[in-house]
Amino acid sequence: MSDIVYVNGDYVAKDDAKVSVFARGFLMGDAVYEVASVIGGKLIDNDAHLARLDRSLGELSIKWPLSKDDLVGHMEELVKRNDLDEGLVYLQVTRGVAPRDFSLPDVEPTLVMFTMVKAILSSPAAETGIKVVTTPDIRWRRRDIKTTSLLAASMARQAALDAGADDAWRVEDGYISEGGSNNAFIVTKDDVLVSPSLAQGMLHGITRKAVLALAKKEGLKIEERSFTPEEAYEAAEAFSTSASSIVMPVVQLDDRIMSNGAPGPVANKLRALYLDLATSGGAPANA
Amino acid sequence: MSDIVYVNGDYVAKDDAKVSVFARGFLMGDAVYEVASVIGGKLIDNDAHLARLDRSLGELSIKWPLSKDDLVGHMEELVKRNDLDEGLVYLQVTRGVAPRDFSLPDVEPTLVMFTMVKAILSSPAAETGIKVVTTPDIRWRRRDIKTTSLLAASMARQAALDAGADDAWRVEDGYISEGGSNNAFIVTKDDVLVSPSLAQGMLHGITRKAVLALAKKEGLKIEERSFTPEEAYEAAEAFSTSASSIVMPVVQLDDRIMSNGAPGPVANKLRALYLDLATSGGAPANA
Repeated sequence: MSDIVYVNGDYVAKDDAKVSVFARGFLMGDAVYEVASVIGGKLIDNDAHLARLDRSLGELSIKWPLSKDDLVGHMEELVKRNDLDEGLVYLQVTRGVAPRDFSLPDVEPTLVMFTMVKAILSSPAAETGIKVVTTPDIRWRRRDIKTTSLLAASMARQAALDAGADDAWRVEDGYISEGGSNNAFIVTKDDVLVSPSLAQGMLHGITRKAVLALAKKEGLKIEERSFTPEEAYEAAEAFSTSASSIVMPVVQLDDRIMSNGAPGPVANKLRALYLDLATSGGAPANA
Repeated sequence: MSDIVYVNGDYVAKDDAKVSVFARGFLMGDAVYEVASVIGGKLIDNDAHLARLDRSLGELSIKWPLSKDDLVGHMEELVKRNDLDEGLVYLQVTRGVAPRDFSLPDVEPTLVMFTMVKAILSSPAAETGIKVVTTPDIRWRRRDIKTTSLLAASMARQAALDAGADDAWRVEDGYISEGGSNNAFIVTKDDVLVSPSLAQGMLHGITRKAVLALAKKEGLKIEERSFTPEEAYEAAEAFSTSASSIVMPVVQLDDRIMSNGAPGPVANKLRALYLDLATSGGAPANA
């Protein structure tokens, strides 16, 4: 948690950061969010995050809480007030306060933002790689909207932790759909980078997009298609992407040791390319 | 919204009823709820609601916020302070306040309760019956847990309202699963009362249970099994059950007029039996 939290126009101490119990984000899960990474005090790929926010809001007919420029201004101000060098900005828009009812009322939205300190550039987990278990995908069908209905994701992660792993990859109809809160990739033994297609109704990962663009520039062959856990077991490498972990190598998938138990060269290369671009002021999602 | 709201041990005015933005019920949809009806200032079937709450909390490893007796005491006190004669008590338990993370931390839960005024005994909608449209069931798989992830339910209801209907019944794999925020029933032309089985992973409706028990006492033949929209179109009657609407007759399902466009005799009878029992101090769920 950060020290200064933004709540509907006010910058308040975290203990004073409160919302009405009648906020639909609290009562009905009627809220969307974004998490953008911060490196050297600068927001990374924030344009892409706000474009996705716009899509999420539009799909649910939730109003923008303020103009995009004002929102960016407050995000930057929040980074400054929290003296955040490296970490994350979390923002959540809920439909707002309304009498509890099963409908989508047209009310003024509630905007909450806070920052989290997190090592992005130098991540111990990225250096060793993580252990992943597969789990059934029990989520709702609108995974393309980035909502705060994250109980299934939390249950999957907790089950992974209980099993001695770090994350869970979801399996639906026999195929890997997504990671716990990230997008899943494998590199086949023929050096093909494979990630499930967005056509499967997945979340449009910002870092996924950036990594695919960087891979293309590097001349890697790319296939956006489904793959099974069995194909992943036989792959040369596996990794996941997210704004908070960038590229996270997977060194064990279920009982299978991946890439000799160390981060693979493609994951390492893509991670380095992303961070080079981000630290030099570029927008990786537009790479 | 009620005038006095209970928030973690305090009775406060509704404008002061706030929770931390770090409550997992706000950030991650990590919360469960119950809605119990109140008639003549008395909670109806509250034991059954609290038994279901216990199950929901257990499935998610969320702690009880206080003892069951204390919870009942506060529910009754809230009814009294709001001078509620007829309506609903809403209660929500969230896992509590924790740094945002995809896991299920063991923290102190947050309890919020409020009341809503609603005509239960004499409902205009129950007198005329409602119009229902069918919609794909896009919810997550753990519908047996009564969580606040109600965006799919709100989207379905809003789509129904936009189509000029009152509610949406969900269809999964060709069969009706549940109503919008209620359980679905039909009465066949052979006088068989049919409702989907709980084995399908549905919410364990308290009013559903009561209505099935009352129907059994009345000598009605009951089948807990799946039925298709097409079977429903040909049925003699259709209705839904919930704590807030008790028995709600359906007089139109998609384009099909049901029971000649008026509440059917079985729905009316079961509604009357339920209300008779509830107003005489009985517990319908134990009928």
